[in-house]
Amino acid sequence: MDSAEDRLLEWLARRAGASAAAPELQIGIGDDAAVLALAGRWVATTDAVVEGVDFVRPGASWRDVGYKAMAVNLSDVAAMGCRPRFALDVLALGPGASEEDAREIVLGIEEAAAPFGVVLAGGDISASPGPTMVVVVLLGEDVCGRTLTRSGASSGDEIWATGAFGGSILSRHLRPAPRVDFALALNRRAPVTAAIDVSDGLAKDLSRLAAASRVGARIEEALVPVHPDALALAARTGKTPLEHALGDGEDFELLFVVRPGFEELVVQIGRETSTPVRRIGLATDTAGTGAGLSIVCMDGNVEPLSPAGYSHDWTRSR
Amino acid sequence: MDSAEDRLLEWLARRAGASAAAPELQIGIGDDAAVLALAGRWVATTDAVVEGVDFVRPGASWRDVGYKAMAVNLSDVAAMGCRPRFALDVLALGPGASEEDAREIVLGIEEAAAPFGVVLAGGDISASPGPTMVVVVLLGEDVCGRTLTRSGASSGDEIWATGAFGGSILSRHLRPAPRVDFALALNRRAPVTAAIDVSDGLAKDLSRLAAASRVGARIEEALVPVHPDALALAARTGKTPLEHALGDGEDFELLFVVRPGFEELVVQIGRETSTPVRRIGLATDTAGTGAGLSIVCMDGNVEPLSPAGYSHDWTRSR
Repeated sequence: MDSAEDRLLEWLARRAGASAAAPELQIGIGDDAAVLALAGRWVATTDAVVEGVDFVRPGASWRDVGYKAMAVNLSDVAAMGCRPRFALDVLALGPGASEEDAREIVLGIEEAAAPFGVVLAGGDISASPGPTMVVVVLLGEDVCGRTLTRSGASSGDEIWATGAFGGSILSRHLRPAPRVDFALALNRRAPVTAAIDVSDGLAKDLSRLAAASRVGARIEEALVPVHPDALALAARTGKTPLEHALGDGEDFELLFVVRPGFEELVVQIGRETSTPVRRIGLATDTAGTGAGLSIVCMDGNVEPLSPAGYSHDWTRSR
Repeated sequence: MDSAEDRLLEWLARRAGASAAAPELQIGIGDDAAVLALAGRWVATTDAVVEGVDFVRPGASWRDVGYKAMAVNLSDVAAMGCRPRFALDVLALGPGASEEDAREIVLGIEEAAAPFGVVLAGGDISASPGPTMVVVVLLGEDVCGRTLTRSGASSGDEIWATGAFGGSILSRHLRPAPRVDFALALNRRAPVTAAIDVSDGLAKDLSRLAAASRVGARIEEALVPVHPDALALAARTGKTPLEHALGDGEDFELLFVVRPGFEELVVQIGRETSTPVRRIGLATDTAGTGAGLSIVCMDGNVEPLSPAGYSHDWTRSR
């Protein structure tokens, strides 16, 4: 695929040359590496989307594939409370992906990146004998003077989430809305103590945040934002919408923890950034074990919450 | 592969915690992104190695695979004249790669990184339904006060190469020796005007450097360092060793250009860093066209050199 690779690289370099430059980027696409003049605190993250795992064809368009590859990384940078700035991308193109398809993937990457001014600074193009795979690497800048982590929550802090959960496989997993603007405003103005991107399921990522912060977590069934897709999927699977909301994953929403008493501010930041937000529970004391996820059910009973999600049939699920 | 993924992440975090820390790394493996306090000029690069393209099993051990994924990126950072510092890695593990195999890949990555003190700061683990794929992202620091590029060579500058070329497929493509120490010493002490990592073949990458610098290039057949592997392979293929040296690729050596009159210095830097180096030709004037690669044959004739490599049968090869 050598000449196709060369043509793609030239196309990429032309596009990069035509787009708005960032002052830090001294050399972009076209040399052995991008050159960046950096100062301050930066975050670096990378995530892959793999054909047959993170997308299937033809259900997903190639533009969707590129969009998703960028969006899942934007979500990670948002969870750190940082501004996404520079990206590298790796396209490993399977036999089913033509040169035109590769361009579509790049256009999808750009589509997701554009609202946040992210600059594509370099990357790699390769052949794959099987599935197509797209890796995006994202550098984010700490523009708030602090980064958010999973590990700062204390007992008594309030647990919040953006958006709604469950059933993303029905299609929105390809087109998540990265919560960058919300996360930046939140990091600037609210006493956030912890945050995580929900990619593996609300319960699972809540358990990761709780473990990192060495707290427990008690969420309320009545407050969990269940996505309409979770209801639609539940009608097919026999699971409950709540089970889908807690266990499905690929929501790419933010789960975050704020000191108590700032409900009005958080809701206002959500309104200002057109981001649905809801308080869903409370960080609890577990004397440093990091275990102890629970859910207050509709009937008032408190039941343990497994990181794998939630099922009323505990004998079966554990 | 959820619990295997969690176990791998824990293993990685433990290893990272136990290894020497870098002062810039504020948060490493275990959050949504790595956090780095950076100052000055940095380079960022990424390269993938894909099963069935960049390695085949069982010919390559899993440790080889990890080693190669890191080494090819080290070579890119070396070509920029920078010191490799921080890496992220993406493992997309096919059905043929077990949890133990994934650990072997990471050990290979570490093996290649260790001599240069590169710190693994984060990454992603994913499943692949087909080939295993390893992507390494590398951040390098400009510790010399300037980065090398492909584009600074002038007519009259001398073209040099490290190592020897051709036949790398016979096995050494899995275990290249990244020329980091040599590149740093060269960048510090010699008037290097351009450099490129030779991954796609000496002639091909020479053509890229020449095009970026808007010069021609004339190399001498008698000076091209032909690897013994090129001779071994030529005995099987019917091509000449020179054809293999010019066209094969995956050498991961440095091709670089130095102002004339510094032969002794460059050779000395090679000696000090145990790096074979040889002057192979001259940058020539092409009045800005960037075309014009040629080779001085053993018999004194000058023939055009195709970026695809070299063949005496020009009617066939073009």
